[in-house]
Amino acid sequence: VPGVITLTTDFGLRDPWVGIMKGVILRLVSDVHLVDLTHEIAPHDVLEAALALEAAVPFFPEGAVHLAVVDPGVGSTRRPLAVSARGHFFVGPDNGLFTAFLRDGEWRAIEVARASGPDTPASVGIVELSRTFHGRDVFAPAAAHLARGVALERLGREVHDPMRLSWPVSSRTREGIAGEVIHVDRFGNLITSIRAEDIDSLPPARDAAAAGGVGRVVVAGVGREPMRMVRTYTDITPGDVAALIGSSGRLEISMRETSAAVTLGFGRGTRVLVRSGKP
Amino acid sequence: VPGVITLTTDFGLRDPWVGIMKGVILRLVSDVHLVDLTHEIAPHDVLEAALALEAAVPFFPEGAVHLAVVDPGVGSTRRPLAVSARGHFFVGPDNGLFTAFLRDGEWRAIEVARASGPDTPASVGIVELSRTFHGRDVFAPAAAHLARGVALERLGREVHDPMRLSWPVSSRTREGIAGEVIHVDRFGNLITSIRAEDIDSLPPARDAAAAGGVGRVVVAGVGREPMRMVRTYTDITPGDVAALIGSSGRLEISMRETSAAVTLGFGRGTRVLVRSGKP
Amino acid sequence: VPGVITLTTDFGLRDPWVGIMKGVILRLVSDVHLVDLTHEIAPHDVLEAALALEAAVPFFPEGAVHLAVVDPGVGSTRRPLAVSARGHFFVGPDNGLFTAFLRDGEWRAIEVARASGPDTPASVGIVELSRTFHGRDVFAPAAAHLARGVALERLGREVHDPMRLSWPVSSRTREGIAGEVIHVDRFGNLITSIRAEDIDSLPPARDAAAAGGVGRVVVAGVGREPMRMVRTYTDITPGDVAALIGSSGRLEISMRETSAAVTLGFGRGTRVLVRSGKP
Repeated sequence: VPGVITLTTDFGLRDPWVGIMKGVILRLVSDVHLVDLTHEIAPHDVLEAALALEAAVPFFPEGAVHLAVVDPGVGSTRRPLAVSARGHFFVGPDNGLFTAFLRDGEWRAIEVARASGPDTPASVGIVELSRTFHGRDVFAPAAAHLARGVALERLGREVHDPMRLSWPVSSRTREGIAGEVIHVDRFGNLITSIRAEDIDSLPPARDAAAAGGVGRVVVAGVGREPMRMVRTYTDITPGDVAALIGSSGRLEISMRETSAAVTLGFGRGTRVLVRSGKP
Repeated sequence: VPGVITLTTDFGLRDPWVGIMKGVILRLVSDVHLVDLTHEIAPHDVLEAALALEAAVPFFPEGAVHLAVVDPGVGSTRRPLAVSARGHFFVGPDNGLFTAFLRDGEWRAIEVARASGPDTPASVGIVELSRTFHGRDVFAPAAAHLARGVALERLGREVHDPMRLSWPVSSRTREGIAGEVIHVDRFGNLITSIRAEDIDSLPPARDAAAAGGVGRVVVAGVGREPMRMVRTYTDITPGDVAALIGSSGRLEISMRETSAAVTLGFGRGTRVLVRSGKP
Repeated sequence: VPGVITLTTDFGLRDPWVGIMKGVILRLVSDVHLVDLTHEIAPHDVLEAALALEAAVPFFPEGAVHLAVVDPGVGSTRRPLAVSARGHFFVGPDNGLFTAFLRDGEWRAIEVARASGPDTPASVGIVELSRTFHGRDVFAPAAAHLARGVALERLGREVHDPMRLSWPVSSRTREGIAGEVIHVDRFGNLITSIRAEDIDSLPPARDAAAAGGVGRVVVAGVGREPMRMVRTYTDITPGDVAALIGSSGRLEISMRETSAAVTLGFGRGTRVLVRSGKP
């Protein structure tokens, strides 16, 4: 069975950098599927890439290698990292890209050694050719080695303090569940830090029946009207704004066939509250 | 020989959704080529996707599976569909995406059953995890099953009334062949609903020799001057507008190394007429 | 071991053209990796594609086939070309796309014959279906044949005068090394025609120690202040402009986490000078 390597970068698709990383990989391993997650991460936006990985990784086969290069610190002293967690491998700079997989559960992290270092067997052969393109010179070879079965430990020395991002979460307040918009997708849907299970923990409104359901409403932005929660996009009345649980299990604010982000002027960081009540 | 699955969506390339569908496929079938047709279909533009499939499918190997997800009705009662036609398979929502392959010839259509339904053998195992991402939860698994040789019939119950779009055609009028612009490509070429064979059915002008050829001209837009038909882009005089038969066998209106769409202010729906005569 | 075919075009990703070329390839060869270099070459910009190939090809496995279609002359008499050079194959229009591999060293070039021509064995079977899409009808089949082991010579007749572009180079002047900006990348870095080895040939300033290093500075644009050379992006003081050797071994002008191109108003063709001295 061929291995799988996914690629996530902020390189864009205009320059041949992603193709170059794939060339490097294919020199080292041939029996592999190369799958692009996205190369349109906003330049240097580590959190956006970390959230994309959180959403995508669970749908890939066990043993997949996830190569991610969003690297404002390339050439600095930040460490190159390889991680094993939840049956998957991760390779990229140690800047928080893999936070979703380092928050709980078991994981193991390795600082990837250069070929010149004392810890890398010559057979692994990771060579730093440039100071500015570690994706090509360090991370792609490391991902290829993992995909062809080289043990994680052979890539370098174990580290116990990989960097983790401050992770966008939701919190229970007296008013309900408070969170924020963490991403705007191509359709203008506003994806929030509030998860389905957070909402399930909120008691329904006493007047839930009158509210026509569980009686939970969403308020986004300051001084806004509450909007109702629906099951799916087609339940939204054209022109209305509504909230629903999207495909990643997160609360989304959406409009029907138009951009909620543009219409409302909302974006990353907009505060969102789920509370009991009727719209 | 590995199978082939093509993917056509309006998901764009910024979010990891296409990658997620590929992950789902690779969990179910490994010996497969995954080929992107396009993920830049205008959001919810089912006709644009249907035309892209019409243009591309004939060039793929027999037995290829074409997964298309442009789905304004996701979560509604529209049916998930799998189709066999002209030696190819198609999987996607029943909203007209596959019209080009359901207009004539033999075809067979199946409503894809969820794993929880009575019609899906447990071994096929298509599970609807979310109400908003059937591409991941219904269509990608169905495409993977077809690519690994599961019989179409095992995916669900046969249906005889798949939805078909009103298809952009040309018509013979007293003036000539009337049609419309159906697509503007990246270079600004205006692709029309008029096909080479339609034009061949039009008698050439009596003064064809004087007109310097078959004596057919194209008029696009209202009150415009006729333009001449040429063989290829390089026959167009810089600054001129001309018409030619493009790579899909359709009449195109083009300029040399500049956008005819921008220069003329034309777009989808602009009326086009081919008639006998000289420019 | 599967072969590798890379694809470089100006087709963009909105239309299904790239997918169609892959379909054509997969009908002819199945055991192959298809790798996109870029499809976002500016329309008809042959030099941009030629520079992308120069940067990327060395990182691919020996024997890889590089299919490139940026073809303002499609349908004209320009020849279809297949080239063998430096252990790689190249297929595309004869318009200078492969200049980087035809400047020195050994190479062999073939004019790809159509199936109807006298030179093409029927078993190779390249058929010109359209006058406007040679990528699909001529180049993709030729690339597939090379990837499945057909000898280069079987594709057509040898030619000795493939077209070469005027190549952006640097020159030694009394002031130092003169060159120009040849490309602006996604991050706004300005990549120049000056190479690391050109700079190494420049004697350091006599006051190098005082200048805090080798004492070489870069002046870009007319009447501008000299900027200092740094090792890597993270050595650039935020707000400053600096120069460094980028991942392709070329001198780049960069800013920290912002676009040097936008900030300075520089682009392709901006003159750049490296000279001895202190900033």
